[in-house]
Amino acid sequence: MFVLGIDPGLTRTGYGIIESRGGRESAIAAGVVRTDPQLTTADRLVELRRDIEMLVNDYTIDAAAIEQVFVNRNRNTAMAVARASGVIMEVIAQKGIPIAEYTPSQMKMAVTGSGSADKKQVSAVISMRLGLQGVDGPADVADALGIAMCHAQHHVASTLGAKS
Amino acid sequence: MFVLGIDPGLTRTGYGIIESRGGRESAIAAGVVRTDPQLTTADRLVELRRDIEMLVNDYTIDAAAIEQVFVNRNRNTAMAVARASGVIMEVIAQKGIPIAEYTPSQMKMAVTGSGSADKKQVSAVISMRLGLQGVDGPADVADALGIAMCHAQHHVASTLGAKS
Repeated sequence: MFVLGIDPGLTRTGYGIIESRGGRESAIAAGVVRTDPQLTTADRLVELRRDIEMLVNDYTIDAAAIEQVFVNRNRNTAMAVARASGVIMEVIAQKGIPIAEYTPSQMKMAVTGSGSADKKQVSAVISMRLGLQGVDGPADVADALGIAMCHAQHHVASTLGAKS
Repeated sequence: MFVLGIDPGLTRTGYGIIESRGGRESAIAAGVVRTDPQLTTADRLVELRRDIEMLVNDYTIDAAAIEQVFVNRNRNTAMAVARASGVIMEVIAQKGIPIAEYTPSQMKMAVTGSGSADKKQVSAVISMRLGLQGVDGPADVADALGIAMCHAQHHVASTLGAKS
């Protein structure tokens, strides 16, 4: 199955597409979608939706997963991330692709076995498991790949559960 | 000018369209868009976007305004409202309609002259100013009409300012 993972943001949204087959995972694509900070919030959301729509049209995707927003940090940032995540969830669901949500600690736990692993450890384990030299670009990209791996893992677990 | 006001929510989104001409305001349409609570959040956002898109296609709208989200209250509710507002802002901006944001107290101040007016007072003043017998339905409808009136008022003020 092909899984799209998303680390949402209005300024930067990280994405990662992995293939998970027979317990083996490989990276298909990964990168960052940026919006122009000069634009209004509404116009940035239009840009973001257009870019995610292109991504979903360009690749085969069976399932998607997105990182859950935290309100604890800066109020305005949390609002912007929540708005971006709403737009992303809508455009993915509108294509008929199911989308799940995971907290950062669920992702860390699934990927590294520890919910409190730091960014460097998470990134290192993701690179190793996907057979990459390292994950380029901002942490959003590693997080997005991690979210996709987390979902693939939960999917395998629930499929095995259903069969047993 | 025709102004669309929005009180956003995932469960219920209030909307109101007013015409403002020569300092006189009249109500064109008002109502509530609901989403099916049985659906996933992502599918509810798809429903919401489709309904707002129909609204924007069906009426002439020159400008839009949306009520700002508060994080102070329930965290999950705030996140759901922020996601809904992101989707609404995107679909309106995508049609080329400019969209402004106002806090509840900015709206109350513009409509009643007091930022701390209660819901009943706000609703009564809105009905009176728009020449309605009363605003039917949940408070979201009155709030949406109030947001539209608030924007029309700010627009007139800024136009006069530019001319003087």
